[in-house]
Amino acid sequence: MKQLLKIIKIGGKLIENEALLNSFMDDFVQLEGPKILVHGGGNKATEVAGKLGFKTKMIDGRRITDKNSMEVITMVYGGLLNKSIVAKLQAKKQNAIGLCGADGQVLISRRREVKEINYGFVGDVESVNTEFIDSILEQNMIPVFSAISCTKEGILLNTNGDSVASEIAIAMSRDYETQLFFCSEKKGVLTDIEDENSVIPELNSDNYNKLVQSKIITDGMLPKLHNCFEAIERGVSAIVLGDAKLLKKNSIHTKIVK
Amino acid sequence: MKQLLKIIKIGGKLIENEALLNSFMDDFVQLEGPKILVHGGGNKATEVAGKLGFKTKMIDGRRITDKNSMEVITMVYGGLLNKSIVAKLQAKKQNAIGLCGADGQVLISRRREVKEINYGFVGDVESVNTEFIDSILEQNMIPVFSAISCTKEGILLNTNGDSVASEIAIAMSRDYETQLFFCSEKKGVLTDIEDENSVIPELNSDNYNKLVQSKIITDGMLPKLHNCFEAIERGVSAIVLGDAKLLKKNSIHTKIVK
Repeated sequence: MKQLLKIIKIGGKLIENEALLNSFMDDFVQLEGPKILVHGGGNKATEVAGKLGFKTKMIDGRRITDKNSMEVITMVYGGLLNKSIVAKLQAKKQNAIGLCGADGQVLISRRREVKEINYGFVGDVESVNTEFIDSILEQNMIPVFSAISCTKEGILLNTNGDSVASEIAIAMSRDYETQLFFCSEKKGVLTDIEDENSVIPELNSDNYNKLVQSKIITDGMLPKLHNCFEAIERGVSAIVLGDAKLLKKNSIHTKIVK
Repeated sequence: MKQLLKIIKIGGKLIENEALLNSFMDDFVQLEGPKILVHGGGNKATEVAGKLGFKTKMIDGRRITDKNSMEVITMVYGGLLNKSIVAKLQAKKQNAIGLCGADGQVLISRRREVKEINYGFVGDVESVNTEFIDSILEQNMIPVFSAISCTKEGILLNTNGDSVASEIAIAMSRDYETQLFFCSEKKGVLTDIEDENSVIPELNSDNYNKLVQSKIITDGMLPKLHNCFEAIERGVSAIVLGDAKLLKKNSIHTKIVK
């Protein structure tokens, strides 16, 4: 039987709110066995960019990462947030190492093709250096990833944090049983978007398809869940969706299985 | 016989000037055998801090690192400069990994005691995790250090880049023959401060003491050279002082030996 490996993605308010982050970190350090943390940090980058006089360009609600924006992302995700999280883990007596995709060629990506819109320095992960991640886990260290990847040609690229976590989980599935945790603002997949208590405890592809057909799952959740089931198809054993309390015992959440 | 390990420290103008840095990197990748890069980045941090509206406080020409300054240093040294250098090395087909002292508890420091002046978040390296550095070198990766260390309690501290390089070289001397290279604005130790061509090719403690007694070496060079001879006493086999062209074949420089 393969060893269990947990990959946890955090972002949004959880990163920005010091108290929430500290409470999450207390739960995170309690998790037993090998684990990996992946973080974004969107709003902090926008805030720093604004103070530096760089305007964040958005097209259809998506950030355009020009050269200045990429510098800010490298500062904020790759430096400030990443190293602060590593230092917080050290303070809690868990050895960790902060990485962006360039470090150890751990996340090699391809720059997104320019079609109607040029998103700038944005890329999609093409390969994960699992051997390098393994060498870190074997030293009892927690790899902490900022959502930055790097092309073969050494260009740093802004990369979707959820995708980074998924691609790592998929790649590590060869040697581990992988569980992927997405901590966001929502407690999980809801049957009623207005009712926070309507969390669906478990989804498999059968009842997922039924819920889509009956239009109980719609809109924003569709692409996210589509990606989740793709990750499951590609080897991830389970995906858990929840809020900042996701790692607490008896948390309310949605678990996605095959 | 121990294997040779080269530790190269860069800072100042070399970091700030893109063309100079690229030219240096071309020389750096030509260096054979295991090697480590250490960088500072002072003025870029001051520039970013200024744009963010943080005033850099100085007392007697020394920077006071308050909480805001430490955040900027973590962004600029730990993120922007560190990850850009790693990406540059990847572009040149040399695998590298960017580290601050918190990563893998690689540089554990003690916060500087408050005496007359409180320098804030500033520390001195107390221990180097040589086993972790070795594991990186064994994977044929170049460790790239930003001048940030971390206390046992997980507090990130601004740390003198020259000292970081020295402490790493000293610690690695147990298992390697270490050579330390300091690249700065000067070609080496000069007999005449006004004459750039008066570089002393080699210094040992005998001729160093004579040059100090005859007041040929004075002022600013004294503490730097004192630290160099201390590193030599503590196991470093040679220290080379020069400018951005230091790693070129037949460079003009000062070599310090026992």
